[in-house]
Amino acid sequence: VTEYCHVDGRVVPVEEAAVGVHDRGFRYADAAATTVRAYGGEPFEWAACVGRLRRAAARLGFEQVLPPVEDLHERLTETLDANDLTEAAVRIAVTRGSRSRGLTPPDRVAPTVVLTADPLPRGGTDGDRAWTAPATLRTVEQRRPPADALAPELQQGGGLPGLLARLELPAVADEALLRTVEGHVTDGAASDLFLVHDGTLYAPTADLPFPAGVVRGVVLDIASGESFPVETGRYTVTDVREADELFLTSPAWELRPVTDVDGYATEVGPITRLCSRLFDERVERAHYG
Amino acid sequence: VTEYCHVDGRVVPVEEAAVGVHDRGFRYADAAATTVRAYGGEPFEWAACVGRLRRAAARLGFEQVLPPVEDLHERLTETLDANDLTEAAVRIAVTRGSRSRGLTPPDRVAPTVVLTADPLPRGGTDGDRAWTAPATLRTVEQRRPPADALAPELQQGGGLPGLLARLELPAVADEALLRTVEGHVTDGAASDLFLVHDGTLYAPTADLPFPAGVVRGVVLDIASGESFPVETGRYTVTDVREADELFLTSPAWELRPVTDVDGYATEVGPITRLCSRLFDERVERAHYG
Repeated sequence: VTEYCHVDGRVVPVEEAAVGVHDRGFRYADAAATTVRAYGGEPFEWAACVGRLRRAAARLGFEQVLPPVEDLHERLTETLDANDLTEAAVRIAVTRGSRSRGLTPPDRVAPTVVLTADPLPRGGTDGDRAWTAPATLRTVEQRRPPADALAPELQQGGGLPGLLARLELPAVADEALLRTVEGHVTDGAASDLFLVHDGTLYAPTADLPFPAGVVRGVVLDIASGESFPVETGRYTVTDVREADELFLTSPAWELRPVTDVDGYATEVGPITRLCSRLFDERVERAHYG
Repeated sequence: VTEYCHVDGRVVPVEEAAVGVHDRGFRYADAAATTVRAYGGEPFEWAACVGRLRRAAARLGFEQVLPPVEDLHERLTETLDANDLTEAAVRIAVTRGSRSRGLTPPDRVAPTVVLTADPLPRGGTDGDRAWTAPATLRTVEQRRPPADALAPELQQGGGLPGLLARLELPAVADEALLRTVEGHVTDGAASDLFLVHDGTLYAPTADLPFPAGVVRGVVLDIASGESFPVETGRYTVTDVREADELFLTSPAWELRPVTDVDGYATEVGPITRLCSRLFDERVERAHYG
């Protein structure tokens, strides 16, 4: 963890960066949170990140107390600067603040706003990866809850279902593959999934209840301009095991190929390499150009 | 909130009672928690409460780092004493401690243990209620997740599904009635439900995915010794609306009658009154005798 955090508008040393035990974020998970990738000192896809944070807060009914977007940007910059970072994953968490009575939310909210940063390598065409080898993926028993049982926008970064999925992983595996209760594959515990079959790029549809990430959206956007077909839909574990290519996306991993899913081998193929290169070029142009 | 809390083995003033922003309880809801009712300075149904805490920690895979039961009891007593309380709801939360890498849990755990107390009236036959009138109950759209999507033992005190259920409540209502995805009623957001039909006491079966509470177990135990039939099973919202009597149970409410469910009126009937009296007598004998 880095030396400085940002708590309620102030940069504070990590050893002093704390929230009260009555904070509803600690007590009830009553918080909206999202992870923002910073490249060259600036947030990647900032509008999309803020949109995700806003939708999470809206689901909890406290979007009106979120700091203004310029204020959030300033806090992000201050967090990076304090740690002398330009390349990082920055997590922004906004809780409903301190509890007054029990589980029922108070009418007036003084939110708690916490930013923390984790260093990452430079991105773009001259960058390095946050991973050293392709990923090993394992299907787990843990499912993503139906949307009416746990809102997907409250599972950004994985959520409790993502954490429980990671707990099932053997040491050899890098990521857990989750499904809906009905058996459709959704995503990794803290990453999104792409499949390639016969030259078509597939991604689980965002109609399924999972916290579809920002990098996923960028990859779909990039791929839509290329010559190969792109589809979103409902897929099974068998579809994943029989894929020609597989990759995961996340703010830290960007695009990470999968070469082993439940013991079935896949190759790092041409569509994965193309999407990864196009992603890096987009980052290079936007942040280091 | 009371003047003192208990954090990592020490009584601390509430304004200093905090957890680090990297604590996995704050960041990932990676915590086991339960609420214990204290009567006359002693925990009610202590073994059952510790069992619930242990099962939650086991679900998260860190039961081996829970403090020993005698140690937890001592912390509870210290929390009550520091606040000069004998009648209270004490929440015990044990988190997996500070994060080292991302969502994946570290191999070695230094847990964070937090106790907080909220004052309540004296219980037993000479006691007062924590509520002033019977409850108004409203069915909500929020569902309890299937067990493989979010473990019920991690929803003690309501969990995020309970919180989201409370958010749907109009100001007039005291409690939200949740259902499974299939439509079977489970419980209140932070309480358990009992129905009376034609002289039989019914409770949703603990086979359904909800965090069945300690008071529910005591009421079922008490009722099994009486002359009226007791059943657990699967019931619908219609069953609830057509019930002759309804009541909710929780550590703070004990037994609280419901006289309005979705606008349908019910009476405070003889079985509710009998169960309530028997509960109070059991508390009186065990804690004030």
